Amino acid sequence: MREVRFQRGFIGNAAGSVLVEMGNTRVICTASVEERVPRWMMRQGKGWVTAEYGMLPASTNTRSSREAKRGKQSGRTMEIQRLVGRALRSVVHMPALGERTIWLDCDVIEADGGTRTASITGAFVAMIEAMVGLKKVGKIDAIPLIDTVSAISCGVVGGEPVLDLCYREDSSADVDMNFVITGRGDLVEVQGTAEGDPFSRATMDRLTDLAVLGCGELAAMQRDLFPDLDFDEICSSRTG
Amino acid sequence: MREVRFQRGFIGNAAGSVLVEMGNTRVICTASVEERVPRWMMRQGKGWVTAEYGMLPASTNTRSSREAKRGKQSGRTMEIQRLVGRALRSVVHMPALGERTIWLDCDVIEADGGTRTASITGAFVAMIEAMVGLKKVGKIDAIPLIDTVSAISCGVVGGEPVLDLCYREDSSADVDMNFVITGRGDLVEVQGTAEGDPFSRATMDRLTDLAVLGCGELAAMQRDLFPDLDFDEICSSRTG
Amino acid sequence: MREVRFQRGFIGNAAGSVLVEMGNTRVICTASVEERVPRWMMRQGKGWVTAEYGMLPASTNTRSSREAKRGKQSGRTMEIQRLVGRALRSVVHMPALGERTIWLDCDVIEADGGTRTASITGAFVAMIEAMVGLKKVGKIDAIPLIDTVSAISCGVVGGEPVLDLCYREDSSADVDMNFVITGRGDLVEVQGTAEGDPFSRATMDRLTDLAVLGCGELAAMQRDLFPDLDFDEICSSRTG
Amino acid sequence: MREVRFQRGFIGNAAGSVLVEMGNTRVICTASVEERVPRWMMRQGKGWVTAEYGMLPASTNTRSSREAKRGKQSGRTMEIQRLVGRALRSVVHMPALGERTIWLDCDVIEADGGTRTASITGAFVAMIEAMVGLKKVGKIDAIPLIDTVSAISCGVVGGEPVLDLCYREDSSADVDMNFVITGRGDLVEVQGTAEGDPFSRATMDRLTDLAVLGCGELAAMQRDLFPDLDFDEICSSRTG
Amino acid sequence: MREVRFQRGFIGNAAGSVLVEMGNTRVICTASVEERVPRWMMRQGKGWVTAEYGMLPASTNTRSSREAKRGKQSGRTMEIQRLVGRALRSVVHMPALGERTIWLDCDVIEADGGTRTASITGAFVAMIEAMVGLKKVGKIDAIPLIDTVSAISCGVVGGEPVLDLCYREDSSADVDMNFVITGRGDLVEVQGTAEGDPFSRATMDRLTDLAVLGCGELAAMQRDLFPDLDFDEICSSRTG
Amino acid sequence: MREVRFQRGFIGNAAGSVLVEMGNTRVICTASVEERVPRWMMRQGKGWVTAEYGMLPASTNTRSSREAKRGKQSGRTMEIQRLVGRALRSVVHMPALGERTIWLDCDVIEADGGTRTASITGAFVAMIEAMVGLKKVGKIDAIPLIDTVSAISCGVVGGEPVLDLCYREDSSADVDMNFVITGRGDLVEVQGTAEGDPFSRATMDRLTDLAVLGCGELAAMQRDLFPDLDFDEICSSRTG
Repeated sequence: MREVRFQRGFIGNAAGSVLVEMGNTRVICTASVEERVPRWMMRQGKGWVTAEYGMLPASTNTRSSREAKRGKQSGRTMEIQRLVGRALRSVVHMPALGERTIWLDCDVIEADGGTRTASITGAFVAMIEAMVGLKKVGKIDAIPLIDTVSAISCGVVGGEPVLDLCYREDSSADVDMNFVITGRGDLVEVQGTAEGDPFSRATMDRLTDLAVLGCGELAAMQRDLFPDLDFDEICSSRTG
Repeated sequence: MREVRFQRGFIGNAAGSVLVEMGNTRVICTASVEERVPRWMMRQGKGWVTAEYGMLPASTNTRSSREAKRGKQSGRTMEIQRLVGRALRSVVHMPALGERTIWLDCDVIEADGGTRTASITGAFVAMIEAMVGLKKVGKIDAIPLIDTVSAISCGVVGGEPVLDLCYREDSSADVDMNFVITGRGDLVEVQGTAEGDPFSRATMDRLTDLAVLGCGELAAMQRDLFPDLDFDEICSSRTG
Repeated sequence: MREVRFQRGFIGNAAGSVLVEMGNTRVICTASVEERVPRWMMRQGKGWVTAEYGMLPASTNTRSSREAKRGKQSGRTMEIQRLVGRALRSVVHMPALGERTIWLDCDVIEADGGTRTASITGAFVAMIEAMVGLKKVGKIDAIPLIDTVSAISCGVVGGEPVLDLCYREDSSADVDMNFVITGRGDLVEVQGTAEGDPFSRATMDRLTDLAVLGCGELAAMQRDLFPDLDFDEICSSRTG
Repeated sequence: MREVRFQRGFIGNAAGSVLVEMGNTRVICTASVEERVPRWMMRQGKGWVTAEYGMLPASTNTRSSREAKRGKQSGRTMEIQRLVGRALRSVVHMPALGERTIWLDCDVIEADGGTRTASITGAFVAMIEAMVGLKKVGKIDAIPLIDTVSAISCGVVGGEPVLDLCYREDSSADVDMNFVITGRGDLVEVQGTAEGDPFSRATMDRLTDLAVLGCGELAAMQRDLFPDLDFDEICSSRTG
Repeated sequence: MREVRFQRGFIGNAAGSVLVEMGNTRVICTASVEERVPRWMMRQGKGWVTAEYGMLPASTNTRSSREAKRGKQSGRTMEIQRLVGRALRSVVHMPALGERTIWLDCDVIEADGGTRTASITGAFVAMIEAMVGLKKVGKIDAIPLIDTVSAISCGVVGGEPVLDLCYREDSSADVDMNFVITGRGDLVEVQGTAEGDPFSRATMDRLTDLAVLGCGELAAMQRDLFPDLDFDEICSSRTG
Repeated sequence: MREVRFQRGFIGNAAGSVLVEMGNTRVICTASVEERVPRWMMRQGKGWVTAEYGMLPASTNTRSSREAKRGKQSGRTMEIQRLVGRALRSVVHMPALGERTIWLDCDVIEADGGTRTASITGAFVAMIEAMVGLKKVGKIDAIPLIDTVSAISCGVVGGEPVLDLCYREDSSADVDMNFVITGRGDLVEVQGTAEGDPFSRATMDRLTDLAVLGCGELAAMQRDLFPDLDFDEICSSRTG
């Protein structure tokens, strides 16, 4: 796994924010709180968590065009932001969040592979920051969390299983898998794609082993960022 | 697995077409051949396969709005059509296809769960029809195929693993997985999502077992639709 | 006139549906009921009928691009769906329908000329099915119909008047007219276009004669599809 | 018929232009010449004529929203500009125009019924102006015209056939027909719609009589605007 | 300064309207009154003034494409309509206008430089017409005006300061400035751009002198169009 | 003036990049080089410089919606990016740049007033970095620069002229001016807007004085970032 760094509170205006770096991949993750839920969820006494994803034009090797200018988000962007939203919702106890929405924005400022998994890992940190803030001002009684969540990519490169692929590795990988895994080691999302030849179940098993290890390390780092929080206690009192 | 039916040659104008039905889910899959490849692939001596997906407004229980009118495809639509395209490309030998594009259109006329997997299974049949046609007129020497491909969904409903979920089951599933698997039993795509609680590796393993069985049956049916073709021979001569 | 076939109840999820075929032209027509009217019609005690039209990409000889992907409906599509909506509204007694909307979706799965007229003829059948359903569940007391309605194209090909043009005839026609005519033989819409040289009033008269005959036959077929309904009685009790 | 006025050369920058007024309906029609044809027409030695239509927001009784701001043209706008284009193309001898495009822009500055027919009548005048200009600079040898063309609306109001309906009449009409008719009295387009009850062939006949008379008058006025041109001679030498 | 002409009441349907001409630049300015304000301003007891800008395709030397067709307004269009809105709002006393919106539409029918400044000068006239109408029907007690407002462009052409640049001068200008100035001679907007070399403060001062003179003349003409109104009295009773 | 900081080379993938901070306003500016110019500029032997601007959703106090999702850039965004582009082009010697485009992306990650002026000041730094890179690899012989350029906002707050307004000051300012000024002290852009009452020429003069001072300081800081470059020599050898 490449070196991981978190720079908390990176955006002063946001309720929660972090600059997450995995190797040369760098993503600004922010959490914003809106005191209402989408129309179709109103009056159900539950909260909502949703995510949006973007890339700065210069984050890629060759400048990519700005989606705001092209006038629409690409299929890839939509796929990723739907994934990030699902991943984060899987660990939030919506009734305890109350009728408010947490917006998670993941903006890639430098892309070197694994931007979607870094986004999930970082968005979790930004979300916790925002929840801590909500608790501080008395809007919620407790952190409405069921578990922690992080994500990692892995793949088969040159016949060998590799964790946390950088762009160069990703480009030449035969198999590319992304895992979203909770602190307890359960699976939230599994996405595997054969880039070259189809792959065997044995390969899938070995990659899953790697991912569980990797997400375990990430989960520990996430916890260390919040020394004042007792995640075991927080999460044990909730069921999804 | 629900009852599966294929009605070949369903659309007279198309190079290949099938009405595939899995239970009450019904999808018109067509293959159209265009004698050129996208600009970024030109002059490489290789073909291209791409897919598009849509749903008739009345295919769902409650009428859904028409994407052409809303002015854009939803994130879900784009995600599905990207998946279908990747799945089919994984079994085509592009140099042997030559510089032409096969467009696969999957239009759901009735939706009762599993529309994306039925689309893949049906699109394969339409594609083979189109390839047979290309061979008949001498545009290609052999069916440019590496393997057959089909797809199936499965999930955990009420604690029990279930294959080929209908809409009602899908709505109450705790886990929802989609598998794209080749005739040889290798994996092309794995997508698993925890709809409720995160799931364990044991669950993932059992669902994978189910899917391998299901796709095995689908592969046999696909072969039976083309009694004149010897898929073993066709596929054995290619490498991806 | 080419052979006409109706396959009722073609889409299980729809309130009304038919696969209408005129020669090789095939259109799936569905009717969906929504228990509200557009905002600008609310609280007037009247219903609304509206139509949408689309073509599957592979319905044409050469694959046409998907409007949902292009991001907008073409002028032709909008023109046709406005026509279908007007045609159907002309025979519905809106106060008796009550404050609900009937959506008519006409999706061409195979196009060989006359798709707009087949859409109207088929949409009428789907609409009646939906109205029968509304009556069965007690939402309306009687079928809110003023008359039946069907449509036919005709033209001058090689100097000769022809009814129900197929694509090849349509492409070489000097004059192309579309008629929407009620069961009583009155005109709802007349649209004539000189594709080549302008045409005389005598030509218009001959084509109108043909269309009245053709729509008479279609009206009889539409009635035969609903042997339980006495259209004379239903329609005689209403005025538009 | 309401009073008709033409103010030629209304827009200094345009190759041809006229402010046409029919009663209170006022339309600026311009013709612009582009020295190329659309891609799909290239290298065929023929010209092209196309039209666009718009309304100033304040042209209607209640301000209508600006289509440029809404981000798309309405179905009505597209229907009208397609009609105007077809009408004008029907009288132009495309090979004699040469490989260039005449753009006809019809912008309604005040709307009181009949804007589409006034647009056609005015666009013809603007087009002739532009053709005269092309001839003057030697780009064409002769005016590439087959016939003149004008358009008029008529309808049944309070049981009586009426020519050239204003907005108030149009709103209460039972039948609304639009005719595009050549100088020789032949039909280019006929569009009739039952706004209330369907109408009889007798009604259609009477309205056609009226329209032929009305377009005859308009044709005479169009000719009078160009005293230097001998339309009989110009048109007699061409076939469509 | 080029010759200036105002043709009041140019559009019969509009609450206020003028055809303003500055040399060959001609703009139709209309004012429409809507009896509500945007959602974000509701229940504040204040009115709103907003502007939209467009150009007829044939208004420019070479036909420009229609924004409604392209599907979006250009950056230039948006910049101009925001400027016009700000300029007019600066002289309206919003509480005295009451909870209604005045829409100012500026549509350029012929462009020869200075269309944005002509739009402001003309929009003021249309707005006053609309306000006079509102007063006449008793919706407002007094004209809710703080001052008059007009605008003018100036620039440095061939080393010399020039007022009211036409298109040819504008194209070759080194500096291009636009000023919006009130009747009292105060500045509402200043926009200066170096088209070629950056410019000195001395240049800016000389151009400002010119603009103040020019707008003084325009203000006098604006007043002369409304001989029944005593602008001094109207404006003296308000503060912004 | 608030504290100014530049963090050069902030984005590893970009040809040039800087994180510029003015007080709490923070903007990532990047420069990307494309080895071609827009179509309308080809074969003229000159380069091109263009800019795009965006804001992260969480950069503002209240989260603002993502333009890529809304499907279009706002008028404000387009206005700003046009301004940034013009400002930077004013100091580049296009023939010496050669037929290539420099894209300047300014993405605001935290907004506290003056984002457009910070964007210009930062974009200049990123552009120089990219030019230095082009020179290093031998694509250009010399830095193609005519002068340095920076920008600053100023305004009247509570009756007092203030330089470099933060968001709170900006919101309550009576006058808001933005200046783009070269290293030699000449004006490239002046934009002044009366937010409240119109302002006098005396006010404009005082604000201009302030801005000249402020941009002088910024120019010095810009130079200090590139100790290896002799800007005087670079710029003296060029004329615009």
